[in-house]
Amino acid sequence: MDRLSQVFVALADPIRRDLVARLAEGDASVGELAAPYDVTVQAISKHLKVLEQAGLVSRSGGRRSPVHLEPEALGLMTDWLERYRRRAEERYRRLDAVLAAMSDEPAGEPEESDDPSGG
Amino acid sequence: MDRLSQVFVALADPIRRDLVARLAEGDASVGELAAPYDVTVQAISKHLKVLEQAGLVSRSGGRRSPVHLEPEALGLMTDWLERYRRRAEERYRRLDAVLAAMSDEPAGEPEESDDPSGG
Repeated sequence: MDRLSQVFVALADPIRRDLVARLAEGDASVGELAAPYDVTVQAISKHLKVLEQAGLVSRSGGRRSPVHLEPEALGLMTDWLERYRRRAEERYRRLDAVLAAMSDEPAGEPEESDDPSGG
Repeated sequence: MDRLSQVFVALADPIRRDLVARLAEGDASVGELAAPYDVTVQAISKHLKVLEQAGLVSRSGGRRSPVHLEPEALGLMTDWLERYRRRAEERYRRLDAVLAAMSDEPAGEPEESDDPSGG
């Protein structure tokens, strides 16, 4: 799977998004991360593995070292989303401007039409 | 599935991201959207259905009307991502500042130590 698909899949789960939200406040151990949920530590480990493989979290040491959020991976998604959001919104703004201009000037009567040689 | 999970799932596929990128340039029919890919129109229709159910695209009329990108749905994801990215990055910046201050002033020997009565 490509990197961008992996990060989108990783955040397509409410528990994994909650883990990211909590890790934004500070590094935490797997046990600390699992505590508030009514699921096994194993289930949380599995979710963390998905986040780790997507590059969203990392661990400095072994399995017992704290989990650390990698904000650059979030930035990767934001960059993609914002590129197309801005492009679409600019286009809709231009379209609105054209529609507004059209309602000001009835068709066939442009403002600069006093030179008949142009037509 | 919650709305945010739906939009992340919808963009966790390279063809669906490509459809969004192309729709950012302008509305298009299903046939136009399907043309560049080596897949059936039916497959593209299925992908568009996933994007539509997530609120990422809409159609003004029936099945033959052009597909329209909804940039607000992209903004929903950006808002979520940026909230936690900023929070984590601010925390890392503060941590860096603390570490930098610590390396400037070795422990037990603060900069203002020229008054020997202090030690």
